[in-house]
Amino acid sequence: MTPQRILVVGSVALDSIRTPYGEAREALGGSASYFSCSASHFAPVSVVAVVGEDFPETHRQLFAERGIDLSGLEAAPGRTFRWRGEYMAELGHAHTLETQLNVFAEFHPKLTDVHRRIPYVFLANIDPDLQLEVLSQVRKPRLVLSDTMNYWIARKPDRVLEVLRRVDVALLNEEEARALAGETHLTRAAESLLAAGAHAVIIKKGEHGASFHSREERFLTPAYPVKALTDPTGAGDSFAGGFMGLLARTDRNDGEALRQAMACGTAMASMAIEAFSPARLADTTAREIEGRVRELHELVHYDLFPMF
Amino acid sequence: MTPQRILVVGSVALDSIRTPYGEAREALGGSASYFSCSASHFAPVSVVAVVGEDFPETHRQLFAERGIDLSGLEAAPGRTFRWRGEYMAELGHAHTLETQLNVFAEFHPKLTDVHRRIPYVFLANIDPDLQLEVLSQVRKPRLVLSDTMNYWIARKPDRVLEVLRRVDVALLNEEEARALAGETHLTRAAESLLAAGAHAVIIKKGEHGASFHSREERFLTPAYPVKALTDPTGAGDSFAGGFMGLLARTDRNDGEALRQAMACGTAMASMAIEAFSPARLADTTAREIEGRVRELHELVHYDLFPMF
Repeated sequence: MTPQRILVVGSVALDSIRTPYGEAREALGGSASYFSCSASHFAPVSVVAVVGEDFPETHRQLFAERGIDLSGLEAAPGRTFRWRGEYMAELGHAHTLETQLNVFAEFHPKLTDVHRRIPYVFLANIDPDLQLEVLSQVRKPRLVLSDTMNYWIARKPDRVLEVLRRVDVALLNEEEARALAGETHLTRAAESLLAAGAHAVIIKKGEHGASFHSREERFLTPAYPVKALTDPTGAGDSFAGGFMGLLARTDRNDGEALRQAMACGTAMASMAIEAFSPARLADTTAREIEGRVRELHELVHYDLFPMF
Repeated sequence: MTPQRILVVGSVALDSIRTPYGEAREALGGSASYFSCSASHFAPVSVVAVVGEDFPETHRQLFAERGIDLSGLEAAPGRTFRWRGEYMAELGHAHTLETQLNVFAEFHPKLTDVHRRIPYVFLANIDPDLQLEVLSQVRKPRLVLSDTMNYWIARKPDRVLEVLRRVDVALLNEEEARALAGETHLTRAAESLLAAGAHAVIIKKGEHGASFHSREERFLTPAYPVKALTDPTGAGDSFAGGFMGLLARTDRNDGEALRQAMACGTAMASMAIEAFSPARLADTTAREIEGRVRELHELVHYDLFPMF
């Protein structure tokens, strides 16, 4: 098994977050941060993103300790992207208090020759036009995974759909799938996105797990029953990291690998939400990941016996 | 395999229902009706319930065709229990327009000697005091399953908990589990009910499936991805019928049987909601049930491979 390298293009941010369980100020955040800390347990990862001159050295250190390649992390004049938000008791939705795009406002990912040839690519939640710019730069990747958010679905639905058609797997949460498909019923929403040209979609349903839909495969993974929920931020990107991580590690995309990849994504998301920032993710071990994947398997596994 | 007989004590009603997909007037309804039509595909069923003098012969016929024992169906002077309700687009909640308890208001289940000795017992959603009356009459049943609703949890929480402690498995939907446990987080709610003395609880989560919790077992079953959703009425009782049906049919209560029983419950619930009244349930076949149970198994089944 030779793990294949993964490229992530997304955001690196400083998050200030309050939840019913505590708060964090100027903690490491951003889709590329959660994704890369998660995926790096499975395969080598290169980050393409931008930070400002004020980006703390300690955060760079955290990436370095995980062996994450930061040669694509541009340091631009100005301040790092900042997000301030809070979660109420239900924890389903972040309430954004302030977004300072700062250096992220002018971000246009420019891939080096080395980055262009990385075989596994994650297009984190950024403007779909930027995602398409990345797609025009990469050279025959083996698997591309994309993420998006309601903000882009409301503003650029055609561009979001264009990305969906050009990637191998698209990640959406329940709300996003419903909004993009114009269909409340989730199974029908997934089918309508496949009919619109998507090759495969994963619908993330928070505490209700996630489902994978393609023409060949339909599969459900329950959420890991987390007890110490602290901060939901980064759950989706951590899921993406575990999902793509397993595929890149095994260099497989068959049904069995996709199913285990969903469990890996679920396990990584469960750890992300047990603490603020990706620190908990960075600190986990192969042993702990394997333990959670095994627990998830036991939650649903059984052998059918004849009954009639 | 000698299927064991099942006793259900609950309601037989006439339902008038409107959903976004159609409507039914004075259709056969009630927990005992859905449960018995569902369970009768797995094992013989006896119903203890009450109807009025106006109960249509055609409905009796439907039970008879399924071989359901109606010797415990009391015909009391007066009118049959009627319920009128509607579901909005979301279909999650019934909006009750009218409840006429009629003969059901004075119902006190009186079990014959034959009924008292039936080994599998389902206490459908009735006043917990009536459920306790039934428990005082039955003679060492092998497995008792109970259901309840928010109405009783709000009015008689101690009696509902008393029932929970005295049965083998208690069925609750998400809201009921949260209300009874006083805990939003579902995994914690289940654990708190076990700590309060329940032996096992099943939490029904509608389109998000169902979970089984006991000290020995924890298990999740996804919902069957129904496309032709028509009327959610009776989903819970149909689930109970498939769940208890498989256990009574196999006379087993080990982990593997409980897991397949959850899938049988899920399959039966999926059929119940594809039509008004239990007619669709009555008409299904072993072949169709087996097909859905197999599909559910495929939705979650995979073999783990080593990854680290």
